[in-house]
Amino acid sequence: MALIQYLSRIHFDFGAIGELATEVGRLGLQRPLLVTDAGIAAAGILERVLDAAKPYAPVVYDGTSENPNEASLDACLEIWKAEGCDGVIALGGGSPIDLSKAIALLASHGGTFADYGVKTGGSERIGKVAPQIAIPTAAGTGAEVGRACVMTLNDGRKTVAVNLNMVADVVLCDPELTLSLPPRMTAATGVDALGHGIEASVSTYVNPPAGAIARDCVSRAARWLPVAVHDGNNGEARWQMMMAALEGGMALQKSLGAAHAMANPLGEAGYHHGTLVGILLPHVVRFNTEAVGDALEDLHRLSGAGAHQTLDRWIDSLLSEIGLPATLGALGVTAEDLPALADKAAADHLSATNPRPADAEDYLALLKGAL
Amino acid sequence: MALIQYLSRIHFDFGAIGELATEVGRLGLQRPLLVTDAGIAAAGILERVLDAAKPYAPVVYDGTSENPNEASLDACLEIWKAEGCDGVIALGGGSPIDLSKAIALLASHGGTFADYGVKTGGSERIGKVAPQIAIPTAAGTGAEVGRACVMTLNDGRKTVAVNLNMVADVVLCDPELTLSLPPRMTAATGVDALGHGIEASVSTYVNPPAGAIARDCVSRAARWLPVAVHDGNNGEARWQMMMAALEGGMALQKSLGAAHAMANPLGEAGYHHGTLVGILLPHVVRFNTEAVGDALEDLHRLSGAGAHQTLDRWIDSLLSEIGLPATLGALGVTAEDLPALADKAAADHLSATNPRPADAEDYLALLKGAL
Repeated sequence: MALIQYLSRIHFDFGAIGELATEVGRLGLQRPLLVTDAGIAAAGILERVLDAAKPYAPVVYDGTSENPNEASLDACLEIWKAEGCDGVIALGGGSPIDLSKAIALLASHGGTFADYGVKTGGSERIGKVAPQIAIPTAAGTGAEVGRACVMTLNDGRKTVAVNLNMVADVVLCDPELTLSLPPRMTAATGVDALGHGIEASVSTYVNPPAGAIARDCVSRAARWLPVAVHDGNNGEARWQMMMAALEGGMALQKSLGAAHAMANPLGEAGYHHGTLVGILLPHVVRFNTEAVGDALEDLHRLSGAGAHQTLDRWIDSLLSEIGLPATLGALGVTAEDLPALADKAAADHLSATNPRPADAEDYLALLKGAL
Repeated sequence: MALIQYLSRIHFDFGAIGELATEVGRLGLQRPLLVTDAGIAAAGILERVLDAAKPYAPVVYDGTSENPNEASLDACLEIWKAEGCDGVIALGGGSPIDLSKAIALLASHGGTFADYGVKTGGSERIGKVAPQIAIPTAAGTGAEVGRACVMTLNDGRKTVAVNLNMVADVVLCDPELTLSLPPRMTAATGVDALGHGIEASVSTYVNPPAGAIARDCVSRAARWLPVAVHDGNNGEARWQMMMAALEGGMALQKSLGAAHAMANPLGEAGYHHGTLVGILLPHVVRFNTEAVGDALEDLHRLSGAGAHQTLDRWIDSLLSEIGLPATLGALGVTAEDLPALADKAAADHLSATNPRPADAEDYLALLKGAL
């Protein structure tokens, strides 16, 4: 069992959920609220985790939607009050994990989520939040070690709160929980992890430790994602991809770049984040080469691409190998969508840390190329 | 300015001490106790830091000895009580930084340092300690991000307390403070950092993020240590070596190995830690090759050693290039010393995480080879 301690206390290995009761006790909780979704419940994973929580009996909310929303948040805060909850256990992918952060925030701070948005400066007011244990079931968004929380408010707006205090106190990374993740989901969430590694490693922020972790994420995901997709029962591959996703999440403090700057507005239109990042990465790699050629050389080496395939072409062939689309058009994006998307990408905070400056014109060209 | 946030909040760049007053305020301190040594005061560094602390006026203790001892600790606790101190600022190398941890511990927990030793299980009782800001002036032990504290008690025994709660809350890494570090000190502390990177990267603990950081430490120290030694005013080299030392410290959670297992008892005899590690590393690298040949290959690549020089020989030539001795005999160790040292090394907790198991007989052979 690996014990990794940076901001979070991370137990990592098959059987990690066995630490759940101990960690609930260590955090001094009596009545945790466990948030998850119906799919996790249906897959039998919830049952296994509730078993591991004994003698504690978390209150369960399994109504988390694909993107966490204010209705769920309000429902959970009602439960929190009614049941006297004192901490959150998040079980699932990015959605329950983000919902957990929002619950931990409002249960401790009061107010509404909109009060804490990063764009209005509200995030700066976030202090210590209620205790959280994150149990990821995909590999993955890295949200289990992330400090950002994206919520869709009742009026439909997406609001992001960002503060280190929202990072989960404890993380249980149990690759066992990902063995049943279907190939398509494995591929899309795996590319999300790879994208974090690639973009963080070349971003403009100076953070060598995060950069080193990002590069390790890249080499790990490159080696093991195809295996995890084609052989879902391969325990080694699931372990490695969960580690890659964790590392991608740990690298996020080094910020990201143009691929995510474009994926964000596209994500608001409903397309899957990881899939989008995969499509956009090769274009961004080519765009960035003049700025960070050396760093991209190193990523090329780490990817195992070999002498006869450039990094961007390697990404294309990886997408093909794992069954993901390589064009935005394949998802249903049309040329008419692009100008508005380009403007939003240029305004996205992640654009500012792309190694090569990019304006709306650059983004329009990139998006057209990816169409 | 790089802001790196894992367990600690680390400001890293020339001018980082400019953040001191802000961070004192952020931690809610009114009356910090600043611990340092006479050398730091004489070098004018203390004055610069006190200036940066304004409007706060820390109480200053500059009597820290080369290895922190209980007499200093008791003196500081007296000052703490008399002055109503509420936090510690550590300014210097490993000694003031460790002293700071001990002060933060006893000021909050009471008792005596011996109550908290790791060998007797006392370290497990350590909870949240008083706030600490660490300002390293060497590159370095990595103690500014470490969770261990070594104190020499009044009866002469060395006792180690280990707990994550003792990690400094805030670190100000200002390479400016190392510009005047003499070549010999630069070399010896730089090899300490390199040794952390090499040993952590191949230790048996599973901790890929720490391993990635360890490897980055190795490539950074390999490239920049000779420059920092020969051209102490080279700001870039000082920045890079401070980063390598920070990374070496961050990697410590992955544990170390045989070189440190031997350096520890040798250190009790008074020899400089970094110098010892340098002498022992080539022997340990050779010893470990059968166990972690692949990982050592990677370190060979990161060292820039080239095709015609093995990693162990490269370390030897580095020591020679930077003016450090390559044998224990050159320090004054004799053959009669070795059997007792070998027994202690075999019993050292760091021996257990060496990638190839080593017993007293192995250590005797290693020490003889290094004599």
